[in-house]
Amino acid sequence: MALFIGVDIGGSKVLAAAVSAEGDVGRVARRTTPGRRVEARLVEDILSEAVAEVADGEPVAGVGIAAAGFVDADGESVLFAPHLPWRDEDVRARLADRWGTVVALDNDANCAALAELRHGAAREVGRQAGDAVVLTLGTGIGGALILGGRLHRGRNGMAGEFGHMQVVPQGAACECGGSGCWEQYCSGNALVRDARERIGLEPTLLERLCGGNPDQLTGPMVTAAAEEGDLVARQAFASVGEWLGVGVANLVAAFDPALVVVGGGVSAAGDRLLEPARTALQRSLVGSPHRVVPPLVRAELGPEAGVVGAAGLVRSAAAGLR
Amino acid sequence: MALFIGVDIGGSKVLAAAVSAEGDVGRVARRTTPGRRVEARLVEDILSEAVAEVADGEPVAGVGIAAAGFVDADGESVLFAPHLPWRDEDVRARLADRWGTVVALDNDANCAALAELRHGAAREVGRQAGDAVVLTLGTGIGGALILGGRLHRGRNGMAGEFGHMQVVPQGAACECGGSGCWEQYCSGNALVRDARERIGLEPTLLERLCGGNPDQLTGPMVTAAAEEGDLVARQAFASVGEWLGVGVANLVAAFDPALVVVGGGVSAAGDRLLEPARTALQRSLVGSPHRVVPPLVRAELGPEAGVVGAAGLVRSAAAGLR
Repeated sequence: MALFIGVDIGGSKVLAAAVSAEGDVGRVARRTTPGRRVEARLVEDILSEAVAEVADGEPVAGVGIAAAGFVDADGESVLFAPHLPWRDEDVRARLADRWGTVVALDNDANCAALAELRHGAAREVGRQAGDAVVLTLGTGIGGALILGGRLHRGRNGMAGEFGHMQVVPQGAACECGGSGCWEQYCSGNALVRDARERIGLEPTLLERLCGGNPDQLTGPMVTAAAEEGDLVARQAFASVGEWLGVGVANLVAAFDPALVVVGGGVSAAGDRLLEPARTALQRSLVGSPHRVVPPLVRAELGPEAGVVGAAGLVRSAAAGLR
Repeated sequence: MALFIGVDIGGSKVLAAAVSAEGDVGRVARRTTPGRRVEARLVEDILSEAVAEVADGEPVAGVGIAAAGFVDADGESVLFAPHLPWRDEDVRARLADRWGTVVALDNDANCAALAELRHGAAREVGRQAGDAVVLTLGTGIGGALILGGRLHRGRNGMAGEFGHMQVVPQGAACECGGSGCWEQYCSGNALVRDARERIGLEPTLLERLCGGNPDQLTGPMVTAAAEEGDLVARQAFASVGEWLGVGVANLVAAFDPALVVVGGGVSAAGDRLLEPARTALQRSLVGSPHRVVPPLVRAELGPEAGVVGAAGLVRSAAAGLR
């Protein structure tokens, strides 16, 4: 049987994988993203290499691409991507021509949400054609809105940009050009920044993990230190978790979904992140005594959510659905 | 032909009206809302009087009720209403029994949005089964979300509570029990508070309009003074307009609608409110150079939007639709 392949192209890494109809990941290939100051052609060469490595000579029935950037509502073009060279380019048709196969394209957060919807934490919502918010806490916040069991893409295909909702007036400067954006307070970057600011103020395991150089601190180090009981790392998670709950309360006030799913690297901390978030959600959500507050749960698919969702997307496209 | 009647029960006033299929308002009746510290029965007596006055002996085909409060997703119960005595009460069935006619129930912001969708500023969105955000700026912010040309009510029927999204951490205390809610900065109350705080600091027409007593200041006074060129009143509109744009940018980032409609008493100021809002929206919205920024327009139906929408709602219910 011909393969369906998902490719997740992020700001730093490319992950490609064969994915079964059940969402199981087979052979994978990894590459480094070349950055945005290169020819678009180079990115496409790298994607081609990764796809060829996964295919390994077998026939390919379709390739789904999860891109870290704005994808138009029709899934044809990458309008803009902060870490990739694509600017308003019809990536889907170009790659379909190049590869001679069906290609489907969406942004990475939408693909991760599709994966959770079909095979993960939002399965029940999918079955019941319900509503859910799916967040991916990585470098920033990826977001997707599921309404009536389907992705809501919006007029420009830009729905779900929750990370750039302003939560602090004149707050921290954001890469988007704005300030006080939610992802400045609730993301992997926010976690590391928070922990970094506390280094030197209090004795902490983090100092040892980063070799005394706060610039070398990473999210996984904060997660590991929190696991070991380090108070500074735990405070950083408490702060990010609190902001998670406050922002989720805003989204729930607006959409009233049945479920909120949180994935991405930061969610590896599990309840250390989610418990303070649930407390803040309950406290901040308007009318919470008079409503069913949606469960705030961890995503199930981990770092492969993007490729699983992208492969599912192209499976549907090949079947004439979207 | 039997009448379809809409009733809008707000925090201070009850407005009832016969409404044609085209959304034209016929005979109206007005009452005062008795407040929340009375028997539910008393409110229902007042609604009955108002409906009887509108009917004036003619047969009634259905009554639609727009209530200022949380209505459940099935349109059966008022779960909670800050200004009304109803607490989790099955208002719809009770009034249908009492009046022996079809009764439909929804919250006032949803009814206003339905009216704009069928007969007002969101007609085109309705025809194209598109997406829109509808805001009603009165005492607070009423909100509704139109998705695929239909109201999105959410799991609890509480979608669209945009006014209680937190925009300022540890901000102004809100009646909902939270703090820093958007409606504390962007509403009729916010307008009056802002103007009040400037009285005494600068010479202003407002001082004369409120007889030298800032406690007597009302929203319409601020609107009138701004119309006369009063700078303090204009600053108050500029501030509320700025907050309107910032909050709308948050909603557009999340939902990416084709249109944003602003109604309610504060919108009577027209571009004095909407121009600063458009500027702030363009500036605050993520990726605005790469997207179609939705038009931010004034609602068309004025203070009768609620009764028009409620009557439309019961017309659909009587036809077996919802």
